[in-house]
Amino acid sequence: MQQQSAPLDFRTDPAVYRHWTLTINAPLAELTLNVAEAAGISPGYELKQNSYDIGVDIELADAIQRLRFEHPEVHAVVLRSGRPGIFCAGANIRMLAGATHAHKVNFCKFTNETRNAIEEASAESGQRYLAAIGGTAAGGGYELALATDHLLLIDDGNAAVSLPEVPLLAVLPGTGGLTRLTDKRRIRRDLADVFCTLEEGARGARALEWGLVDEIAPRSQFVAAVQSRALTLAALSDRPNGESGIALPRLERQIDNSGIHYRYLDVVFDPTLATATLTLKGPERDLADDVTQVRALGAQLWSIALLRAFDDALLHLRCNEPNIATLVLRSSGNLDRVLRHDAWLNAHAALWWVREIHLFAKRTFKRLDLTSRTLVALIEPGSCFAGFLAELLFAVDRSYMLDGTIDGETSHPATIALTRTNFGALPMSNGISRLETRFYGDANAIPRLLPLVGAPLDAAAARAAGLVTFTPDDIDWRNEIRLFLEERASFSPDALTAMEANLRFPGPETMETKIFARLSAWQNWVFQRPNAVGDDGALKRYGTGQRPRYDKTRI
Amino acid sequence: MQQQSAPLDFRTDPAVYRHWTLTINAPLAELTLNVAEAAGISPGYELKQNSYDIGVDIELADAIQRLRFEHPEVHAVVLRSGRPGIFCAGANIRMLAGATHAHKVNFCKFTNETRNAIEEASAESGQRYLAAIGGTAAGGGYELALATDHLLLIDDGNAAVSLPEVPLLAVLPGTGGLTRLTDKRRIRRDLADVFCTLEEGARGARALEWGLVDEIAPRSQFVAAVQSRALTLAALSDRPNGESGIALPRLERQIDNSGIHYRYLDVVFDPTLATATLTLKGPERDLADDVTQVRALGAQLWSIALLRAFDDALLHLRCNEPNIATLVLRSSGNLDRVLRHDAWLNAHAALWWVREIHLFAKRTFKRLDLTSRTLVALIEPGSCFAGFLAELLFAVDRSYMLDGTIDGETSHPATIALTRTNFGALPMSNGISRLETRFYGDANAIPRLLPLVGAPLDAAAARAAGLVTFTPDDIDWRNEIRLFLEERASFSPDALTAMEANLRFPGPETMETKIFARLSAWQNWVFQRPNAVGDDGALKRYGTGQRPRYDKTRI
Repeated sequence: MQQQSAPLDFRTDPAVYRHWTLTINAPLAELTLNVAEAAGISPGYELKQNSYDIGVDIELADAIQRLRFEHPEVHAVVLRSGRPGIFCAGANIRMLAGATHAHKVNFCKFTNETRNAIEEASAESGQRYLAAIGGTAAGGGYELALATDHLLLIDDGNAAVSLPEVPLLAVLPGTGGLTRLTDKRRIRRDLADVFCTLEEGARGARALEWGLVDEIAPRSQFVAAVQSRALTLAALSDRPNGESGIALPRLERQIDNSGIHYRYLDVVFDPTLATATLTLKGPERDLADDVTQVRALGAQLWSIALLRAFDDALLHLRCNEPNIATLVLRSSGNLDRVLRHDAWLNAHAALWWVREIHLFAKRTFKRLDLTSRTLVALIEPGSCFAGFLAELLFAVDRSYMLDGTIDGETSHPATIALTRTNFGALPMSNGISRLETRFYGDANAIPRLLPLVGAPLDAAAARAAGLVTFTPDDIDWRNEIRLFLEERASFSPDALTAMEANLRFPGPETMETKIFARLSAWQNWVFQRPNAVGDDGALKRYGTGQRPRYDKTRI
Repeated sequence: MQQQSAPLDFRTDPAVYRHWTLTINAPLAELTLNVAEAAGISPGYELKQNSYDIGVDIELADAIQRLRFEHPEVHAVVLRSGRPGIFCAGANIRMLAGATHAHKVNFCKFTNETRNAIEEASAESGQRYLAAIGGTAAGGGYELALATDHLLLIDDGNAAVSLPEVPLLAVLPGTGGLTRLTDKRRIRRDLADVFCTLEEGARGARALEWGLVDEIAPRSQFVAAVQSRALTLAALSDRPNGESGIALPRLERQIDNSGIHYRYLDVVFDPTLATATLTLKGPERDLADDVTQVRALGAQLWSIALLRAFDDALLHLRCNEPNIATLVLRSSGNLDRVLRHDAWLNAHAALWWVREIHLFAKRTFKRLDLTSRTLVALIEPGSCFAGFLAELLFAVDRSYMLDGTIDGETSHPATIALTRTNFGALPMSNGISRLETRFYGDANAIPRLLPLVGAPLDAAAARAAGLVTFTPDDIDWRNEIRLFLEERASFSPDALTAMEANLRFPGPETMETKIFARLSAWQNWVFQRPNAVGDDGALKRYGTGQRPRYDKTRI
């Protein structure tokens, strides 16, 4: 596919999965991969050997999300293959060979986010993952396993783990593999070099000795070993027993020529300015004091519904609207009510499902940070950027807050408000809060901001606190924003993407930022090189019987 | 220049500089940039507006090196322009527009190394740098200033600092600019976004308010302010007074068809295997106990002479031998004598010039880490990998140590030896030693290795300690190494470069690793995109009166 055949839809559910089966057997769940070869998301390739395209990963991401919200009783998850001899062969090569550069980049970004969601579930949701590697795990298949807590490899003389991308395909293991080898599993870098250049990978005892897997078991004991280890992992969980989950019904949305419309989010396109304006709507009513009543709202709870819409919109825009240069973030609603919602969630943060809401917000805002479009926030009268919505102001590349009201309108001037949600509940990929990132290196910043918690800040106060970039008055407002949006649309999209990827992540680095900022940047480079993607390159020639021809210049 | 016209020669000295003037006026030195417009290193462009190509930067790197070794009396260095109204316009755009992708990448790498050398001189050599910005500093010109300790901008209503790459050229400020803005100068990321999209940059008071410069001075007071601030910086130095320096005479070498030959280093090419074998030679004799006698050797001192040769060879190979896939590192000499040299240097590490030797080794080995060729060490009988030479074993992607002797030869089996030099004296760009990097995350590794200091380790002991990768015996030796070199030569050069760039830097990140691993990777990506380098791209169209045409897809 040189162009995608149809818009990608990230909404799915287990009843319609083509590639994965989700089986619940509390405290365990099993996610079984049995890829439907003919059911690739685009025409032109078959998903042989349990290889995947983004369609397979959309189901996986959905399953991980549902396990967290819908299944409090699941305390550990087993990833396994439904096919003998093969765990997963990684990303489908024919798909990669035919995909546009943009699709390859977006595909890798999404699979990386999904692997990170597995690790986050393990670390923060009490839902640990085990990879039951009953057959060969190659490339992205091994990278999927690397995202789990425990890799249990069948020791049958055949099954191997491998990262054969460099020798076979002239690309990198691009779903975190290199970084997880060195930084998570702490494989010595010379051994990692050997492993990553070995087409056949490592089997059994050698894989264990090198630290590539955590455990091996002969065929006769494999199933029992998986079960036993999964129960051990489940026993570490702090998730409840006997509680029901929060069902995630199909997300309702309408897409029309003007944009995308959800209950709490409106997305409006402006092709001339190359913008999508996302207006996030505040809650219509306050939450009851009674936990049971709030819990009964299920996925209709404002924060859950809004996050689901926002997450879906970000993915849709990323993959299906490549010509949008700038996402304009607005909000509309009652600021005090948002503050009260935010306070309710913080007061009940220890509940397993409230924890899931915070973690969902964290993942969604990380996805925003990684969106390769310019991000700008407009703060106008009637907006409600408070608490977890205020977090968006610190995710954007810059923000404009109207000082005063628009001439002739009677609404009150805009205010924003910080809550303690902004001080650590929603860390970025770099492990620190957006406020810490914003004021990186200024030890006085957080002590200076903490006393502002809960107070409505008008434009002058917000600017003085360093929380917004510009505060034009109504004389300049429309013109200044139009000029900015026109300017942004006139710049090179590549230069902007690369610049923003750098400026958004000052300060410390983590495995996640290394995966996105270093590994992915190198992979993006490789994904443009003729040695990989040219007609004589490895991706194109793989499986044709012809060897690739390389320009041998080392750069 | 689509191809370089002539091999680059990194050897120069102030007597033949075309672009810089070095003036010593202890405790200060002045480095004045007055680019000879017609003296570009390749034909096809003029170095207008004090813009630079790699030839200008080769002189700067040489000056920084000489200031350290030859001028202990210099305690602060002023970077200034010899031209009114312009400090430096950055990398020459015509040069970039005509250069190969490989040259652009190597050019940026070298300029980055040179900027890092300025920061290292400031931090560790007691030679602080001041940028006397008496006119506009644009793009790479401002990035050069950002590498200094103190940016003093003339406040004359005209002079500005700017990073106009994104709006004007569709590339990044690629010489550390983005990372230094956020991580060194801690400019808030939204202000950095504004600054980096503002063609005209910031002048005077605004530049100071945003933290883009440290000080401003009106024209009438500029010279005095520079002098005063430079003396203040000089007063912080721990460099000596009244000592003479170590002169760095022209580095002698012969280049012939077989390779490059220096006194202590032999480089031999094998075009079939695409290798360059670098054999580092140990010292011929022991050092006297008497410091004065050793000091009198000047640049003939083995460690200095070897490092100069090694550094020169790395740069030569990087820029002039793009088809070499693998650097094979060997050594030859008396291991015990290397140990005694190493011990001598450690015993006198507090002397300013011994400190410079260690820092030189540190910089050179960092350059090795950043060399985009496969690095392998072969440890054979007669080798002398001890102390600072053993460090090379931990810089390479993998190592082979012969277990025993080659059949029929009478030499003793190879040994290697650690010294305390390997435990922190030569940190990598990531701020930790190569041994800490090698055993990243293993808290017991360093305590386990420390007792081995000084002891000769044979192949079995070295392998058991995790210090070498493979230890074939004489039956397998030649074959195993040939297979490895053939395999490496058969892989995609791009995939290898990207893989090695990831595996070589496990663990923590610093501003330097962020510059090389994140910013440079993104810039390499941009340097391939048609929006920058295509016929309608910004680099090609800049200055033609035609606006660039962009593919607006955001990726």
